[in-house]
Amino acid sequence: MLLSGGLDSSTVLSMAIAGGFKAYALSFDYNQRHRIELESARKVAASLGVEEHLIVKFDLSEVAVSALTSDMEVPRRKVEHPGAGDETAGSTVLQSGIPVTYVPARNTIFLSFALAWAEVLEAEEIFIGANAIDYSGYPDCRPEYLEAYEKMANLATKASVEGAIHFRINAPLISMKKADIIRKGTELGLDYSLTWSCYDPQKKDEKDKGGAVCRPCGGCDSCVLRRKGFAEAGVPDPLMQ
Amino acid sequence: MLLSGGLDSSTVLSMAIAGGFKAYALSFDYNQRHRIELESARKVAASLGVEEHLIVKFDLSEVAVSALTSDMEVPRRKVEHPGAGDETAGSTVLQSGIPVTYVPARNTIFLSFALAWAEVLEAEEIFIGANAIDYSGYPDCRPEYLEAYEKMANLATKASVEGAIHFRINAPLISMKKADIIRKGTELGLDYSLTWSCYDPQKKDEKDKGGAVCRPCGGCDSCVLRRKGFAEAGVPDPLMQ
Repeated sequence: MLLSGGLDSSTVLSMAIAGGFKAYALSFDYNQRHRIELESARKVAASLGVEEHLIVKFDLSEVAVSALTSDMEVPRRKVEHPGAGDETAGSTVLQSGIPVTYVPARNTIFLSFALAWAEVLEAEEIFIGANAIDYSGYPDCRPEYLEAYEKMANLATKASVEGAIHFRINAPLISMKKADIIRKGTELGLDYSLTWSCYDPQKKDEKDKGGAVCRPCGGCDSCVLRRKGFAEAGVPDPLMQ
Repeated sequence: MLLSGGLDSSTVLSMAIAGGFKAYALSFDYNQRHRIELESARKVAASLGVEEHLIVKFDLSEVAVSALTSDMEVPRRKVEHPGAGDETAGSTVLQSGIPVTYVPARNTIFLSFALAWAEVLEAEEIFIGANAIDYSGYPDCRPEYLEAYEKMANLATKASVEGAIHFRINAPLISMKKADIIRKGTELGLDYSLTWSCYDPQKKDEKDKGGAVCRPCGGCDSCVLRRKGFAEAGVPDPLMQ
């Protein structure tokens, strides 16, 4: 199970565990500017009771420049009415509709480590929180990509070539709306206050003594999608209380 | 260009440079027991004049157990007559013919970092020294695997989805015999004394003051294939002088 600590992957983890799976969570410390998400991943993994949680560390900024792995500015959307529809992404996207927060080959790298670990664990089911509806437009979140990855994975490993395992890439959120994802997780008792979505964490006022050191920016793609999702689900976001 | 510092990938690099490519070499410090190969990768990259050589570091032994990333014994073949044919691998292989030196999803992980860097460099051609003839029987060295990887890669990235780049996975050695690989590199002037093949480096006698700290074991799959290749090519192996 790829677990970023965000809303989507945390929901998938709660769904897999509710479905009776023994879950092994895999996160990555890839020098992302929102590394705070790893704290959320730890909390979510612990609260849901995974068998094991591994954090693999490498510096993706060496090979892959992105607004998420560099000092490049993370674009903010101007949102006058939080919760209102704001489907057009304005300046946050490139000409193709793929935003500057896109990280080259990120899911391909993440799934490859998951594949290695799955083979060792003799685990057939790999879960990823990819979503192709209320998402940021990343190419490696689309069903056709995930299908091609699965085909490749089954040609790549000893366990699959020997016929011991047929790997499946499961993306149960792929065609769900953000609001439905939140309703599902809420129904399963997932504590969304543990999750983290913001790409551009802001330092809290030092005078603020309570709790987390960071607060969400509220304006990046990920914050906007989260806020819209909670609003549509009719559920308050516990992170914003 | 994936560059391990071994015989195959070093030859591919010399072929690509002879073919007029500006080459960017990518190596991995993945906690392999034969990490000495990275020294060879550095020397080969420098001697052939690459534009840039990156070494990405992560600990693959966390997720993927193998004789190459653990204390597990690297099997030795009993070779009475070095250079003679020894196609049967005896105790060094598992029931499928895939040896214990197989590292889960290794090429998939390596190619994924290469894909990320290639997208950033706007490089269409990714080179790998995979060989399906005189090789160790790894599933991720077969043509069908590499074809599936290429399909997946072109669905994975912004550059390919936007149509700016069509990635190709080039494995020019895929159907070459080891001896022909060595003849090719020798013809191109590659200095094979810079390369390293052994999976199980042996410490040199401390009284030995000269040169490298390690020597090849001579008995692992990789040493056996190398010796056989040089013998068949009728070329002395400069590493063994």
